[in-house]
Amino acid sequence: MIPLEPMVNSMAWVSSLTSSFQFPSQSILATAIDSENASMVLTGVLLSLVVVYIASKLGGELSKSLDLPPVLGELVGGVVVGVSALHLLVFPESGAEASNSLIMTILQFVGGLSPDSVTSIFEAQSEVISVLAELGVIILLFEIGLESDLRELKKVGYQAAVVAVVGVAAPFAAGTAGLMLIFNVPAIPAIFAGAALTATSIGITSKVLSEIGHLKSKEGQIIVGAAVIDDVLGIIVLAVVASLAKTGEINVLNVIYLIISATVFLLGSIFLGNFFNKSFVAIVEKLQTRGKLVIPAFTFAFLMAFLANAIHLEAILGAFAAGLVLDETDKRKELDKQVVPIADILVPIFFVSVGAKADLGVLNPAIPTNREGLIIATFLILVAIVGKVITGWAVFGQPEINRVAIGVGMIPRGEVGLVFAGIGSASGVLDKPLEAAIIIMVILTTFLAPPLLRLAFKKPVEQVDLVG
Amino acid sequence: MIPLEPMVNSMAWVSSLTSSFQFPSQSILATAIDSENASMVLTGVLLSLVVVYIASKLGGELSKSLDLPPVLGELVGGVVVGVSALHLLVFPESGAEASNSLIMTILQFVGGLSPDSVTSIFEAQSEVISVLAELGVIILLFEIGLESDLRELKKVGYQAAVVAVVGVAAPFAAGTAGLMLIFNVPAIPAIFAGAALTATSIGITSKVLSEIGHLKSKEGQIIVGAAVIDDVLGIIVLAVVASLAKTGEINVLNVIYLIISATVFLLGSIFLGNFFNKSFVAIVEKLQTRGKLVIPAFTFAFLMAFLANAIHLEAILGAFAAGLVLDETDKRKELDKQVVPIADILVPIFFVSVGAKADLGVLNPAIPTNREGLIIATFLILVAIVGKVITGWAVFGQPEINRVAIGVGMIPRGEVGLVFAGIGSASGVLDKPLEAAIIIMVILTTFLAPPLLRLAFKKPVEQVDLVG
Repeated sequence: MIPLEPMVNSMAWVSSLTSSFQFPSQSILATAIDSENASMVLTGVLLSLVVVYIASKLGGELSKSLDLPPVLGELVGGVVVGVSALHLLVFPESGAEASNSLIMTILQFVGGLSPDSVTSIFEAQSEVISVLAELGVIILLFEIGLESDLRELKKVGYQAAVVAVVGVAAPFAAGTAGLMLIFNVPAIPAIFAGAALTATSIGITSKVLSEIGHLKSKEGQIIVGAAVIDDVLGIIVLAVVASLAKTGEINVLNVIYLIISATVFLLGSIFLGNFFNKSFVAIVEKLQTRGKLVIPAFTFAFLMAFLANAIHLEAILGAFAAGLVLDETDKRKELDKQVVPIADILVPIFFVSVGAKADLGVLNPAIPTNREGLIIATFLILVAIVGKVITGWAVFGQPEINRVAIGVGMIPRGEVGLVFAGIGSASGVLDKPLEAAIIIMVILTTFLAPPLLRLAFKKPVEQVDLVG
Repeated sequence: MIPLEPMVNSMAWVSSLTSSFQFPSQSILATAIDSENASMVLTGVLLSLVVVYIASKLGGELSKSLDLPPVLGELVGGVVVGVSALHLLVFPESGAEASNSLIMTILQFVGGLSPDSVTSIFEAQSEVISVLAELGVIILLFEIGLESDLRELKKVGYQAAVVAVVGVAAPFAAGTAGLMLIFNVPAIPAIFAGAALTATSIGITSKVLSEIGHLKSKEGQIIVGAAVIDDVLGIIVLAVVASLAKTGEINVLNVIYLIISATVFLLGSIFLGNFFNKSFVAIVEKLQTRGKLVIPAFTFAFLMAFLANAIHLEAILGAFAAGLVLDETDKRKELDKQVVPIADILVPIFFVSVGAKADLGVLNPAIPTNREGLIIATFLILVAIVGKVITGWAVFGQPEINRVAIGVGMIPRGEVGLVFAGIGSASGVLDKPLEAAIIIMVILTTFLAPPLLRLAFKKPVEQVDLVG
């Protein structure tokens, strides 16, 4: 054995070092302890990611095998590993402490940590997972932007626009007014919950339509067009309500500023994007090193997300605009392909985290104080379904059209609804019962839409049987 | 205008909410403020990533256009945006405060933050970027594992093994002994610096060999084989010295434990991997949702990284072992392709951070206290070159072989050398002059190798001209 003393006791070691070199003022002992913590933060993040991936895949595959959208299973997987059940993935902002986290218990067993460092490691690890989840939703919206097609929007035209506007206005007005008048919910959370009712999941709707062979029908075209417009409207609504939540004011001037700035930001970036497109392609074609397409694309997406944040909109609006702009370049197909694996490893962190943060315990009817939350959930689900189904009757000049199918096609809230719930929860605007009610609403509308859509299109019985 | 009071003043709002619902003990005001900070952490991370990507691409492309390895330019790009120059990307562990960070100044301008929240946002943002950098190096080593081929190792056989062992032992012994005896550096940092001298960059070496058309020559085969073995040896050396740094002891039993556990871990996971391979392929083939290959692969890689960390080895050893195991499956090619874009967006965060953290100011010869650091850097560079060039003479039974070319081919330290510098710096073992000296050594050996290798293979003049 050469020198035996541990580093933290070896003051001679430290002083010999400080005498021979210019040395930073910071203590090397503190640094050594910090570095032990930094390594444990990484260990905690790695274990959290393993939990997230297993939950997302088990949930997603189970959901798929039941012929439901995989994203639903990822959410339920998050609920199972989160604060409602296994306590593997819990977050300080929902009031959990390090001692509630099973992952922190495992780390303590592995690393022999002091109680003080456990709390700081828990907070740092949760912060990292939260930011990874936010990067996940930014990349999801970037990908949705890449998949949306501006020209397609113009083709389906007014019919789709009317359906989208009615599908945003009706549930928002009915939801917000109902919550305020019937349930005495304060204005800001009521508006936020109303906004969460406006979304339509373009992913789920178009996937189900293509599975039942109605994607190219007139109804299918209108549904998809409306869902695309709804995505844009929903993001503007989200930007407006999230900023309301931040400033805490319902200031009409502020609302007008936000609507104008969100619209100008989105339309402006699309307009300027026409010129930027050529520079982007020219830059990408000059580059010769690895990541020559994906790095400029993500630089642009993150820069747009940063700019949106900087003018008090949501980061996802910037990422969505970046996706719309880059969708117009010739590099689109190559980029689509390269974004897929990146989205695959980051997006599930978002969905699983949303599920993990949702405390479904507040909807347990055995606890008397929960009952009001449950009644609210029932109300939200009714508004969510009725508010979208009526959109079918907004279609004009098409007497032969299957109005029920169009309305039903707009029901699933999917990703965008969860984005509302997640951001509402993170901003502290939604209390737990209301947040849980929104999540239950998203889950149920997403669950119900695929079978209802099949019924509305009057599928032959044997094909329904194949599915069930 | 509807109600005008901001949320933070509206106590009536809070109490109306708490009276109608069961409410968490945590204050909603604190949550609202935290959430403003959380949003600013995301803003800071987004801006940092934009800086990282621009620095990595400008540096990488410039380096490539000078016919040097792109990774070198990413590192230099990091130096430019980091603590040595622009102060865009600085980290608290190198003694920087929020006021030294240009990104934090921008955030303050954008967000109007209080001094208290600036410090906590700066620390949280730096923590997130550091963990992203660590995930980057984990994915880099996973990818190197995927690219390494166990069967190829067996083919080039003993010649390559001898070259590798001499190329690890000679610079390590000469470097460590020289630092301790000539420069009176304490044992642990001397061993760490010696260990950083052992690496050979498989990426740079094989790329240069293929560029000059000598990849398939006998010399080329031996160099690549030795570089692969050197990668494995280097990772074991890193695991040993990093653990020494953690425990602060040079305990022979501990060294033996680490060598055995690293070897058993690596060989054991390869051995068990033969059985796991089939289950992995079977699982992947059953999955039907998005990310069906990449999610199980990353679950495995992160789990192995966690396990390596849990038994006090380095996370990268686990990721490398996971890569070696999955390289043996039929899914290899598909996986290789999907890992590329993920590595492209995460690995540069590592290289740019290493450069950003390196304070080259300590090597300014105008400051008298810096001179010892500069002399150490000169010493390290000499040992780094001589210690690898002599490996050519370790080749036996091949009288015709170009010994100089083999030795020169082993010179570039590249990624693995930077991994040592980064981990040494993060663990607090290396003081700044020694860390900067190691980085200068890595940069210079990597810079020198491509032109020296061309000279050693006596390339025709016109081809050299084409390049220069």
